[in-house]
Amino acid sequence: MPKSILKDAKVKALKIQLLMTGNELLSGDILDSNSAMIAQYLKDLGIEIKRKVTVSDDIELLTQEIINMSQQTDILIINGGLGPTIDDMTAQALANAANKSLIEHPQALAHLVSWCDKRKTQLSKPNLKQAMLPSNCNIIANEIGSAVGINLTLNNCEVFSTPGVPKELKVMLNKEIIPLLNEKIPPEMTLEINRFQVYGHGESSLQKLIDETYPNWPDEIELGFRASMPLLEVKLTSRSTLDRSVRIHWRDNLKNLLGDHLVNEIQGQPIKLAEKVLSLLQKEEKKITTAESCTGGLIANLITEISGSSQSFEAGYITYSNSIKSNLLDVSETIISQHGAVSKETVLAMAKGALSKSKADVVVAVSGIAGPKGGTIEKPVGTVWIAWGYKNKLQNHKLQLHGNRIYIQQHVAAIGLDLIRRLLINSQQAPNYLK
Amino acid sequence: MPKSILKDAKVKALKIQLLMTGNELLSGDILDSNSAMIAQYLKDLGIEIKRKVTVSDDIELLTQEIINMSQQTDILIINGGLGPTIDDMTAQALANAANKSLIEHPQALAHLVSWCDKRKTQLSKPNLKQAMLPSNCNIIANEIGSAVGINLTLNNCEVFSTPGVPKELKVMLNKEIIPLLNEKIPPEMTLEINRFQVYGHGESSLQKLIDETYPNWPDEIELGFRASMPLLEVKLTSRSTLDRSVRIHWRDNLKNLLGDHLVNEIQGQPIKLAEKVLSLLQKEEKKITTAESCTGGLIANLITEISGSSQSFEAGYITYSNSIKSNLLDVSETIISQHGAVSKETVLAMAKGALSKSKADVVVAVSGIAGPKGGTIEKPVGTVWIAWGYKNKLQNHKLQLHGNRIYIQQHVAAIGLDLIRRLLINSQQAPNYLK
Repeated sequence: MPKSILKDAKVKALKIQLLMTGNELLSGDILDSNSAMIAQYLKDLGIEIKRKVTVSDDIELLTQEIINMSQQTDILIINGGLGPTIDDMTAQALANAANKSLIEHPQALAHLVSWCDKRKTQLSKPNLKQAMLPSNCNIIANEIGSAVGINLTLNNCEVFSTPGVPKELKVMLNKEIIPLLNEKIPPEMTLEINRFQVYGHGESSLQKLIDETYPNWPDEIELGFRASMPLLEVKLTSRSTLDRSVRIHWRDNLKNLLGDHLVNEIQGQPIKLAEKVLSLLQKEEKKITTAESCTGGLIANLITEISGSSQSFEAGYITYSNSIKSNLLDVSETIISQHGAVSKETVLAMAKGALSKSKADVVVAVSGIAGPKGGTIEKPVGTVWIAWGYKNKLQNHKLQLHGNRIYIQQHVAAIGLDLIRRLLINSQQAPNYLK
Repeated sequence: MPKSILKDAKVKALKIQLLMTGNELLSGDILDSNSAMIAQYLKDLGIEIKRKVTVSDDIELLTQEIINMSQQTDILIINGGLGPTIDDMTAQALANAANKSLIEHPQALAHLVSWCDKRKTQLSKPNLKQAMLPSNCNIIANEIGSAVGINLTLNNCEVFSTPGVPKELKVMLNKEIIPLLNEKIPPEMTLEINRFQVYGHGESSLQKLIDETYPNWPDEIELGFRASMPLLEVKLTSRSTLDRSVRIHWRDNLKNLLGDHLVNEIQGQPIKLAEKVLSLLQKEEKKITTAESCTGGLIANLITEISGSSQSFEAGYITYSNSIKSNLLDVSETIISQHGAVSKETVLAMAKGALSKSKADVVVAVSGIAGPKGGTIEKPVGTVWIAWGYKNKLQNHKLQLHGNRIYIQQHVAAIGLDLIRRLLINSQQAPNYLK
């Protein structure tokens, strides 16, 4: 069970419910990522959502739900239904619920005019609908979209109505709604948060390690975990009123415990493992190459999907068959026939071949059995040899993984990237996954 | 607007609401894919969900919600909260709502005993909790998990309580709940469905084409679309009572209209584009190779993530820099200096080089600018040359794509796979994306 002293206090801070609208959220065609986004923002304020209702685009249902929910909660965040089409009926439902009429809101109209001006388009009739808002509302600025948000009070509940387009919702939460909610939280309830990205620890293994190393971990600093494959996000949350030196002391304890399993301390947005590898390659002015058998180009793809990767990546080799390993990477046929394609000797030869052909500085090479077929008693599915390093100092290791084909491929690719990261930071610690 | 005659009738068939439970659904840590799965199954019965409520693991909230919802709907599907831990409280909440007590249910106990026997484990005390069910309920079989489902009637509403583990939910829906619901639907309301996977049409372009070609498309056959990148799923839905020959006539009209844009008629589960390509390669006993610049291994990865791909794929070349294109694929330096790396001449030379080095039968080669940097006025970001075909008959084309780096890479990879699919079916029609 996670420590709960903070949590109990947080729930009391503010009661918030979510109302999501849109047929597409109920048809199974898309997953509701907007409410997850809202929940993540609220969590950083120390607020947990206890109830969410999703309704189709039906004016009666929507109106009734707004009335019911406003009677149950302090804050109601509505998402969706602010667009220009006939399906978009949140403004009307809010007006119905508040027993008000829709009027042309001058500020909303001005926003629409300027929005169209910037795009050099005419203000269309459907767009004009977006200025028709409940007579008693305030508008919430939308920096990047045509739909302004709506704010009003109903049955002592503060209602925020937000656009369904995810990037517009994000900006509106960031710039408008979260700061407003933050003001409503008593100063002694506001939170300080540190976030870390970790590779090589699972949630339960890390929790166990912390419990063992620091049996006196303070209740005032809450530990949170979030699996964001392949990385684990670790979050330290404490009250702003907690003494700064205490927070720093325990943050540093955690960082020491993580050691080189710590990939990144998040400033702003989380990063990808390959982004970290690329930034280290660029800093060291090194180039990387890949020689992949069972991962079939996945490692190269993870690297090259990052902008600017061409500076550090010139060549990758996908060598599935034995003859290609020989022809393309000069792996000698004797090595393959004596040791097999999935062997230390082969993967080292692949690594050497890729380095010498590409003139890169560092290499990662993998050869293994991703399954579901191809396993034997000596080399079952999930057996993977990996080699990595500099020309004059190649390392190698055997992995024994479990799971389906795609899982094994993704796992191997992440380990490959992480081993390169450790190489580039000159890590002297053995990662958990090689123990 | 989609044709709605069927829809109006369908909604009347049965009123269903969903109740999802679990803190993890409200914390933003995971997306709720279970309710999407349920919605997809119900859609095939002609049932649309109009309302869904998600609540945290709180016995009072859960009990109250069950009571309220049972008063509003014919059928209530509850998901989650059937596990062995203290957070799992759906059985208790159902008992509270029905004013019944929990009793040890003999059938549920027998299921648990046999489930443990199969796994050669002891029945634990937490597991025993899963046999404690409301005294007035029937159990719903769970073929693959320890948690049986719960079925009871409350306020004239039929309640089905289902496990939160997605694969258990899936089996229970398939084998137990959907057949039960199907029986409740009047025969004249049951549906027949045909599904197709299409590449090269967007939803609106295909709708427009159908409207233009068949202005008399019958209301009795409803067209549905679902973007499942990179493929578009097209669904034809009609009442079972519709004359079979009419259904076949319009299905064939659609298939003719789609032509070679039709990738697959779905039997059971949808397939991936690369799966189709691989099955064609295996049928023709051909091998494929890839030479990728801007896609950085993505095409190879899409192929090799499919089980059994090693039969048809031996080698892939990722050639980012100019010198690697020359060294690895024998692209002459004169070609690159005269025409540039992103040119017809270079991509054709890459294709030839990959074929001759790998001894494969077919090839796809791409060279382009995925961005965000590297664009020029003559060759802006999104300019991509692609070459594909057999050794003695290579084709090529220039693409001009829009979007961010990852979108461009994925788009190019899908086009590459589709061009190989068309090659292998010997298509004589030009795809929309090359027009």
